[in-house]
Amino acid sequence: MNEFELIHRYFDRPAQNAVLGVGDDAAIVRPTPGFDLFVSVDMLVEGRHFLAGVDAAALGHKTLAVNLSDMAAMGATPRWVVLSVALPHNDEAWVAGLADGFFALADRYKVGVIGGDTTRGPLTLSVTVFGEAPAGRALRRDAAEVGDDVWVSGALGLGAMALREKLNGDLILPADVFTAGIERLEKPVPRVELGQGLLGLAHAAIDVSDGWFADFGHILARSNKGAELWFDALPTHPWLAERRAVYPELIAAGGDDYELAFTAAVSNREQIVALGASLGVAVTRVGRVLAPEEGVTLVDVAGKPVKLKRAGYDHFA
Amino acid sequence: MNEFELIHRYFDRPAQNAVLGVGDDAAIVRPTPGFDLFVSVDMLVEGRHFLAGVDAAALGHKTLAVNLSDMAAMGATPRWVVLSVALPHNDEAWVAGLADGFFALADRYKVGVIGGDTTRGPLTLSVTVFGEAPAGRALRRDAAEVGDDVWVSGALGLGAMALREKLNGDLILPADVFTAGIERLEKPVPRVELGQGLLGLAHAAIDVSDGWFADFGHILARSNKGAELWFDALPTHPWLAERRAVYPELIAAGGDDYELAFTAAVSNREQIVALGASLGVAVTRVGRVLAPEEGVTLVDVAGKPVKLKRAGYDHFA
Repeated sequence: MNEFELIHRYFDRPAQNAVLGVGDDAAIVRPTPGFDLFVSVDMLVEGRHFLAGVDAAALGHKTLAVNLSDMAAMGATPRWVVLSVALPHNDEAWVAGLADGFFALADRYKVGVIGGDTTRGPLTLSVTVFGEAPAGRALRRDAAEVGDDVWVSGALGLGAMALREKLNGDLILPADVFTAGIERLEKPVPRVELGQGLLGLAHAAIDVSDGWFADFGHILARSNKGAELWFDALPTHPWLAERRAVYPELIAAGGDDYELAFTAAVSNREQIVALGASLGVAVTRVGRVLAPEEGVTLVDVAGKPVKLKRAGYDHFA
Repeated sequence: MNEFELIHRYFDRPAQNAVLGVGDDAAIVRPTPGFDLFVSVDMLVEGRHFLAGVDAAALGHKTLAVNLSDMAAMGATPRWVVLSVALPHNDEAWVAGLADGFFALADRYKVGVIGGDTTRGPLTLSVTVFGEAPAGRALRRDAAEVGDDVWVSGALGLGAMALREKLNGDLILPADVFTAGIERLEKPVPRVELGQGLLGLAHAAIDVSDGWFADFGHILARSNKGAELWFDALPTHPWLAERRAVYPELIAAGGDDYELAFTAAVSNREQIVALGASLGVAVTRVGRVLAPEEGVTLVDVAGKPVKLKRAGYDHFA
């Protein structure tokens, strides 16, 4: 089966939301009148963003999930996606698995898979996702305001905990904790509905992929704000919560969380809690936004500074 | 300079046509009311789509050019582009060169560079380009009609000729011919204005990237049509034209042409010739579209079949 047949067989499915899907020089879609278009791209490389030998379907899921997470962080509704893949071998079973995981998640969010490119090369995936939101509305990184609450969804550190155990084996996790971490690491659930619900409630948002402290720092940098951030309030798995002081980096800087970090006016607290409850997603207040001259501090419950050995994941480290 | 700094320094330029450019979870653009959105993705891998050691600026140009060529083939006006790059080393000079070549071409066509992702990995580029055209109008591959003229723009075979000389050195090309071929290979000029002009004049179109015979075959397959194709009419460089019978594959199946192959009603002949003349782009009639049961034949000027050892480039060959 050559390149064209491989693409045709596994990616040339009738696309949702499309005038013309895979199979021409370009796909054609019809944007919703009065809406802005949101575009995000991610490249994933074997050995860096995922381990060699990872299950193809899990990888297909995660590849799309991390991009849907970007749409969630903007408050946009994901609508379309294109995928390009460099494959070291013409491995039909692997492509089939990848497509299964990818399309299952796409179908769940009614995202049209409108384009694909496959070539031979070191295993690399690149995804571009498109979303829509009413024109002029978005959860931008540069929109945090002094006095805002700092929020984070779900729980932090599970993916990083599982990855460390898998690579180093030094945490000695109970089996159920390890399983929960692996599930988060390999099959993260993007907070799409939460992001949509926060449009109009939150000011700034970002998705937590490289580590919460570094990622939230992007909001502060682009908004030109300071913050007091409460380490002991950071939501995490009970196993990690008991060892909070031992592994602060796993929680605050681990990465692979795909939660939303956001800021919102104090007056919207109750609505945000109600939104989280209606979606079954925990939302936790973990700090407040300050003027830029007050700087950024991460403190424990006693108000003492917490030091992190590193702030987040550096793709070139 | 880490990943974020590298991206910021070379790709975080104020984007044309964008509400919000690089630097958030997603870029935001505002589609033109009443227009469809065209999306195309290409992945380029070192050693397969370009040679190791290629000049970074030339690569930046070509990476975008091949994608603009896809927009041209749809009759769409390119508007936005995102680029993801996996880099084996954190090589600032190389990234700067790549960005230079990429942005120079983007600026020429007023295409906004609205997103980028950079990571460490084997040298791989992935580009997603977006274009627009009035809703419901496009040059689709499935739109060829019986009786249509078959056209091709520019000249075929120059890039393949230069690549073969570079790799094998067996053509013994005069220096000026080699230079012309390398120019086409490394700095192809996408036929954007021609594609736009053909909207309403042509029926079906495709861009010639993998070899004209195979690429035009996609039009015939998707349109369910046959064709008589005239090998001796195929426009090429004078040096190759003199050796047409010796190197038929370089002309008809070489690839790296980035010309447009298209079909149009006979009644539009004069307008198409006038369009080409107004743009300074040769347009040549090279066959006619037949009913599917008449099959596809490639014939010489005497009407005898021309055999090609291969029809085009297979990315998994």
